[in-house]
Amino acid sequence: MISVEQHLDRILSTVTVIPPFELGVLDAQGCILAADVQARGSLPGFTNSAMDGYAVHASDIATASAESPVTLPVVNDIAAGNTKPWSLASGQTMRIMTGAPMPHGADAVVPVEATDGGVVRVQIRERRSVGAHVREVGEDVEAGNVVLRRGTLLGPGQIALLAAAGIARVRVVPRPRVVVISTGDELVEVGRTPGFGQIVDSNSVMLTAAVTAVGATPFRVGGVPDDARTLMETLEGQLVRADAIITTGGVSMGAFDTVKEVLSRVGTMRFDKVAMRPGMPQGFGVLGDERVPVFTLPGNPVSALVSFHVFVAPALRAMAGRPEPSYPPGYVPAVAAEPFGSVEGKMEFVRVILDDDRARLAGGQGSHMLGALAAADALAVIPEDVTEVAAGDELMCLPLLGREGM
Amino acid sequence: MISVEQHLDRILSTVTVIPPFELGVLDAQGCILAADVQARGSLPGFTNSAMDGYAVHASDIATASAESPVTLPVVNDIAAGNTKPWSLASGQTMRIMTGAPMPHGADAVVPVEATDGGVVRVQIRERRSVGAHVREVGEDVEAGNVVLRRGTLLGPGQIALLAAAGIARVRVVPRPRVVVISTGDELVEVGRTPGFGQIVDSNSVMLTAAVTAVGATPFRVGGVPDDARTLMETLEGQLVRADAIITTGGVSMGAFDTVKEVLSRVGTMRFDKVAMRPGMPQGFGVLGDERVPVFTLPGNPVSALVSFHVFVAPALRAMAGRPEPSYPPGYVPAVAAEPFGSVEGKMEFVRVILDDDRARLAGGQGSHMLGALAAADALAVIPEDVTEVAAGDELMCLPLLGREGM
Ligand code: NWS
Ligand code: NWS
Repeated sequence: MISVEQHLDRILSTVTVIPPFELGVLDAQGCILAADVQARGSLPGFTNSAMDGYAVHASDIATASAESPVTLPVVNDIAAGNTKPWSLASGQTMRIMTGAPMPHGADAVVPVEATDGGVVRVQIRERRSVGAHVREVGEDVEAGNVVLRRGTLLGPGQIALLAAAGIARVRVVPRPRVVVISTGDELVEVGRTPGFGQIVDSNSVMLTAAVTAVGATPFRVGGVPDDARTLMETLEGQLVRADAIITTGGVSMGAFDTVKEVLSRVGTMRFDKVAMRPGMPQGFGVLGDERVPVFTLPGNPVSALVSFHVFVAPALRAMAGRPEPSYPPGYVPAVAAEPFGSVEGKMEFVRVILDDDRARLAGGQGSHMLGALAAADALAVIPEDVTEVAAGDELMCLPLLGREGM
Repeated sequence: MISVEQHLDRILSTVTVIPPFELGVLDAQGCILAADVQARGSLPGFTNSAMDGYAVHASDIATASAESPVTLPVVNDIAAGNTKPWSLASGQTMRIMTGAPMPHGADAVVPVEATDGGVVRVQIRERRSVGAHVREVGEDVEAGNVVLRRGTLLGPGQIALLAAAGIARVRVVPRPRVVVISTGDELVEVGRTPGFGQIVDSNSVMLTAAVTAVGATPFRVGGVPDDARTLMETLEGQLVRADAIITTGGVSMGAFDTVKEVLSRVGTMRFDKVAMRPGMPQGFGVLGDERVPVFTLPGNPVSALVSFHVFVAPALRAMAGRPEPSYPPGYVPAVAAEPFGSVEGKMEFVRVILDDDRARLAGGQGSHMLGALAAADALAVIPEDVTEVAAGDELMCLPLLGREGM
């Protein structure tokens, strides 16, 4: 029996960051930059107006006030999108729109509200100092400067900056592509009615959803029968598109535990009993020349999802280049609303419903019980040495992925 | 000038939950159930073994112990996926695998570890009581019972439960389809090099990413020129696929503010100055027979993204059927690491970097400054009546969407 931390440590010291890949900025959403990025152009790319109003020489309107407005001839209209460079002589003004290029020579903008809005000639009722409402070329970003550093997570703001700075494609750590395989002769595909002795392959849809929830890209293979050759062929066939493979089922003590049987022959695979409940039988290793990490999770649905949260999700984060996939990951504190027992010597993952910070049992805790799993908001993590939880005890909870809301 | 809350209230009292739609369970990930769902089958669907071991009549092994094991003939092997119902006579045993159907008459399972693992006859070294390691039909879910209630958010565990209970398709509130349109003659498409007076249309990629980050489905139209007819045709053409439309640009005081000009004629549209910085000029209303909500956001990139967080995201949540899109939404507390000023009478959204709970300015706070926006983790929300923030003051921060990590 090994501890949860031992198993996770082994996984995290085996997986590596996925090699960088060039993607369009929008496709790179949610990815980590693999290299520093330099701006191709300056931002702003040209000195422009921050207001709708009139471009002026500030010195021309130094005396302007409501009582004695300064009147200037309007010699031009500069709309945003105007691509011609203009020059403004002293004693004149040009109407200018927000984002439009400042004419050469002008050094301030008077907002239209501080004028009579004239089109041929304009009365300016307020003075403005040099630089007022003018955005200087390069004041946000200078061409050639590093705008985003390697390691940055690309969200909407980062994508906007890249696009604006002239960058259309970036080298990022791509989202892990994760193949999801269920094993078992008892499985029928979702939507088919299971006969006596059969069950719906719910694990593959569950884990596909979990892979999506963590921001990785799933490929759902679905159920393969308990046949060594079919399983090996499926695994080998999937290696080409997999950054990681998850299987469920076939890893315990059974006479037909094909996954364990087939993969035990692969040198790097190890099958362990991990001191946790549920999720005790775990396998992990790498397959093929590309050393693709393979997680063989137990078949019981609750065990499989708990294993995903505790082992697979941190590994995928590490593979995606996220900083320090720390353990424990993303715990939230809560208070037990009721007493319950926990088995000694195993870390228990108890399905709980959170009302604010009060955690109550979500229902039957059997590792096959989907009812309580679906009712739960989080897994309360009960350490190995705790056997009794009293109402009011502090708990650390792992929120269930994909339940965080929009 | 109206307040942020007034504008948001108007939006939230206008938008409605999107009509329910039937989706496959996997496609329904992240959606809210529109109706209670009843299990088609029971879970487990048949009484089965929780262990790899031997199915017995518990009474036959009542005296079993390590010193005096009970030996029983093994008359059958029942694998998972075995679809034939068997019967077990008293005085006999059948080898059985985890998940395999219990033979009729058997009422307990002895795990293989408590035996010698025999295939023809087995020595049982431990007694087990009636029901041990047996999962009764329906003990998790009974056929016909409601398994998930209307209003439930579908994550991995909920999807697994639905699939297992025989449900392949569900009526859910679909993800909002959001059309993103930029306006302005100055815009060039991402990847093109802007000439003098031109800028890259970064708003449409930014807001597309934001729509994705909030769990809705974006349709990026990109830039349309400042031409009333083109704009109106674009808007009308997009109505068919839109649950909501977002535009940027063309809503301030300019002579060429086409969005405002075109949509002011539509009865339901209203253009307001909202007491916030950035993001002052806002428009909102509904378009077409389907009354599609239209958000006309200001063109300055920071203003557009702040507006998305403050107005669009809560509206999309409400449209997706999420419970109470409360305002303020999802604030996190922080402490100001440095002093800064804030304009009186406006709610300010200050781009800050969070080091744990310490918030420092992310850089230049101009509404065109993408550098600081991309460096920021959150928007510190400074109320209208606050003009000075001192180091150590408590702040409420709105985390920037899509920066939460995997
Ligand atoms: N003697 C002995 N027996 C033991 C153990 C032991 O210590 N000693 N350990 C336990 C534990 S202990 Mo636990 O994690 O702490 O709860 S898992 C676990 C379990 C692991 O068994 P495994 O070989 O991985 O899986 P199998 O294929 O047998 O299926 C397991 C179950 O899951 C269902 N199932 C499979 N696939 C799917 C799918 N795709 N969708 C939906 N359900 C599915 C399948 O029907 C079956 O009911 O064996 C037990 N048996
Ligand atoms: N006299 C007067 N003038 C005023 C105001 C006022 O009160 N009085 N208010 C302010 C404020 S105040 Mo603020 O929110 O509090 O910061 S927005 C705001 C602004 C709103 O202007 P709008 O008409 O919405 O947008 P326009 O099309 O003019 O563009 C605006 C900017 O954004 C850029 N831009 C456009 N589209 C994109 C795109 N797709 N990608 C990247 N950048 C883009 C575009 O280049 C330009 O620099 O007008 C100002 N002018």
